[in-house]
Amino acid sequence: MELNAIFINCTLKKSPDTSNTEALIQKAISLFDDLQVKSKIIRAADHQIAFGVTSDEGDGDEWPKILDQIKQADILIVASPIWLGDKSSICKMVLERIDGSTSEQEPEKGQYPLYNKVGGVLVTGNEDGGKKVSADVLFSLNHSGCTIPPNSMAYWVGKAGPGPSYIEADGDKHLFTNKNLRLMVHNLTYTARMLRQSPLPTDIFKLTDEAEKESKSS
Amino acid sequence: MELNAIFINCTLKKSPDTSNTEALIQKAISLFDDLQVKSKIIRAADHQIAFGVTSDEGDGDEWPKILDQIKQADILIVASPIWLGDKSSICKMVLERIDGSTSEQEPEKGQYPLYNKVGGVLVTGNEDGGKKVSADVLFSLNHSGCTIPPNSMAYWVGKAGPGPSYIEADGDKHLFTNKNLRLMVHNLTYTARMLRQSPLPTDIFKLTDEAEKESKSS
Amino acid sequence: MELNAIFINCTLKKSPDTSNTEALIQKAISLFDDLQVKSKIIRAADHQIAFGVTSDEGDGDEWPKILDQIKQADILIVASPIWLGDKSSICKMVLERIDGSTSEQEPEKGQYPLYNKVGGVLVTGNEDGGKKVSADVLFSLNHSGCTIPPNSMAYWVGKAGPGPSYIEADGDKHLFTNKNLRLMVHNLTYTARMLRQSPLPTDIFKLTDEAEKESKSS
Amino acid sequence: MELNAIFINCTLKKSPDTSNTEALIQKAISLFDDLQVKSKIIRAADHQIAFGVTSDEGDGDEWPKILDQIKQADILIVASPIWLGDKSSICKMVLERIDGSTSEQEPEKGQYPLYNKVGGVLVTGNEDGGKKVSADVLFSLNHSGCTIPPNSMAYWVGKAGPGPSYIEADGDKHLFTNKNLRLMVHNLTYTARMLRQSPLPTDIFKLTDEAEKESKSS
Repeated sequence: MELNAIFINCTLKKSPDTSNTEALIQKAISLFDDLQVKSKIIRAADHQIAFGVTSDEGDGDEWPKILDQIKQADILIVASPIWLGDKSSICKMVLERIDGSTSEQEPEKGQYPLYNKVGGVLVTGNEDGGKKVSADVLFSLNHSGCTIPPNSMAYWVGKAGPGPSYIEADGDKHLFTNKNLRLMVHNLTYTARMLRQSPLPTDIFKLTDEAEKESKSS
Repeated sequence: MELNAIFINCTLKKSPDTSNTEALIQKAISLFDDLQVKSKIIRAADHQIAFGVTSDEGDGDEWPKILDQIKQADILIVASPIWLGDKSSICKMVLERIDGSTSEQEPEKGQYPLYNKVGGVLVTGNEDGGKKVSADVLFSLNHSGCTIPPNSMAYWVGKAGPGPSYIEADGDKHLFTNKNLRLMVHNLTYTARMLRQSPLPTDIFKLTDEAEKESKSS
Repeated sequence: MELNAIFINCTLKKSPDTSNTEALIQKAISLFDDLQVKSKIIRAADHQIAFGVTSDEGDGDEWPKILDQIKQADILIVASPIWLGDKSSICKMVLERIDGSTSEQEPEKGQYPLYNKVGGVLVTGNEDGGKKVSADVLFSLNHSGCTIPPNSMAYWVGKAGPGPSYIEADGDKHLFTNKNLRLMVHNLTYTARMLRQSPLPTDIFKLTDEAEKESKSS
Repeated sequence: MELNAIFINCTLKKSPDTSNTEALIQKAISLFDDLQVKSKIIRAADHQIAFGVTSDEGDGDEWPKILDQIKQADILIVASPIWLGDKSSICKMVLERIDGSTSEQEPEKGQYPLYNKVGGVLVTGNEDGGKKVSADVLFSLNHSGCTIPPNSMAYWVGKAGPGPSYIEADGDKHLFTNKNLRLMVHNLTYTARMLRQSPLPTDIFKLTDEAEKESKSS
């Protein structure tokens, strides 16, 4: 069974500027390669993504074609730099658009489009904020339908204050980050395979109907 | 296959004081009953839990016996009230102790004790903070080894400002909360069963060794 | 002494779409009017603001002229809607640009451009997230140099789940929000006046020099 | 005019265990000494503080006498270690109790007890989380009535992952932390003096009355 991973790189910089976050993504990709998972990267800043909370904001919005690629993947990883201890504005824009997909419940399945996908997060910053960014991203992905396998995040940050970023600081040799990256990649792959074999049967429409009956009862 | 769920109620109030959070827990339990999942509640405030970040702080610490019960469960749900938009101090105390369990990697399995368990969160407050508390709790549980199935949280809050809490406000008739509760209970149960049948094979020791080799290479 | 307030409305919607956040801003403005504070609103979505973390990203970036107006104000209020329990992506974009101003320390004063300004936050959402958004915004403004007077935030949210927003729900009649708005407006005005009369003398360059000496000593 | 600062150390460890957070507090105190500000430290873990959200939970609760000392101070600094990217449970317990003080509005002044005090935060951890903890603490202090002067926080953290803490890592020589500490101490002192000379006149009762009238009007 071939699995596909998609990475959304939420750096504020357009190509061909160097992205430290992409360097960490490349490490993850080489680990996915070993497990026969095919990877694809989308750098959000290179696309005209509209601000909004629907799946298609019209008017040249390039989100719909990105969402199509997300739908075809088994594994969705949002990767963000840290700015002032928080995810990037582009990361929040991407999470707003991903959340918009929950209004697209397909009638035949009764599930959000991200059900039966697994989610993870990668973060780089020169300092402080990796866990806050991770918590926010994983929460959004979970809310939008992703299963989150154990330890589904990896980050690199330096000491408090200004300093070199991932590439310059040889973050690729940092044991803690490399260990977490392995846990994440292995758990994402295993869980994605499990969900392909035994997809969640949850029918959101049916459960909503039950909830409506209960909420009206007296 | 019988599954077991454990709820840790992190209200600041000791028994027999009324806990709104417990009222929401009871709703979840009745849904778990329908799916043949056995439930147990531990009200943290009723126990002498020491502040600390290990699995046993000695000196009358009652956490070790709570941790034993968590280890026997398939489903772990942390339930917290909201104070000033944030989880309760008792909830943070419980998360610190749960996190402490990650230093107990069993040599034969190479996994944290919470691996192959699923995690969820319940939150009640008279106002504002349900999503922040949920994000914090799910992040901690995921970090400590839990898999987080989709939509693994349910919360009730009233409008901005002081006002009635869950019980007084008839929160048990609130459609949004009742719908989320169903998604959560169904997804937790399905995923817990899947993990009992096909547990994650991840060997943290082995992956750490690989990471060490890579980190030292040049 | 005439004081000026500037509001940055971070709704995702461009003019002339109705903005609930702007409705709350208008309430604040009418209170500022009573205190002889002049107000101005900038709706960020109506401007070509570049992603980035400097004060001028070039290439048609309209941030520099917004920053000029912020520099002329005494009171800076960032107003955001809530999406998935968090500030909007446009709000984060604005905070990234505001943070960029800290690299513009003027040699003669040794202070960030936002020193001696006061900061506040307004939030509307149909549900949950007002406190998290407020904490994030106030933290950023404080970090960028603003003084935060007591209770410098006001928000409106409805009950958990989908529901009417501020305007439709008659949020303008909500006591809790109206009370907080008054505390905020009065405290911002009083503190702004105090800082005009007695500006902070802090010299960041001088203190940095001292810190350098200490950090090198042994 | 003599000013007083009080530090609440929220380490999980009781005296006489070494507290890294206290080492950073001592640095701040020596800077306050230079500015003729008298300092006092309370280590929360050494006291029987009850869980709760009022100013006196009875039954041996030692919070009331701590609150008395806070009320006598001009400058309130909450200092916390980081556990799993978040403030300590003891820190949250302290914030819950501080928040409880807002229900004590004195009839003659119409203000919360923390009005006209200034607030700041200190954080140490071996890694990641300084900004999140700072944002949470400053938000709580602001909400409870404190004015937050610019840059009212200082923290030290090491690189991502396990590693030495503040003392062992010679954090006292870390330029970034030492610089922030100076900004914080100077701005707290200046603003506290300003508020002693020109206290905020805000009358919460009066403003609440106005808000009530407006909220009922049609």
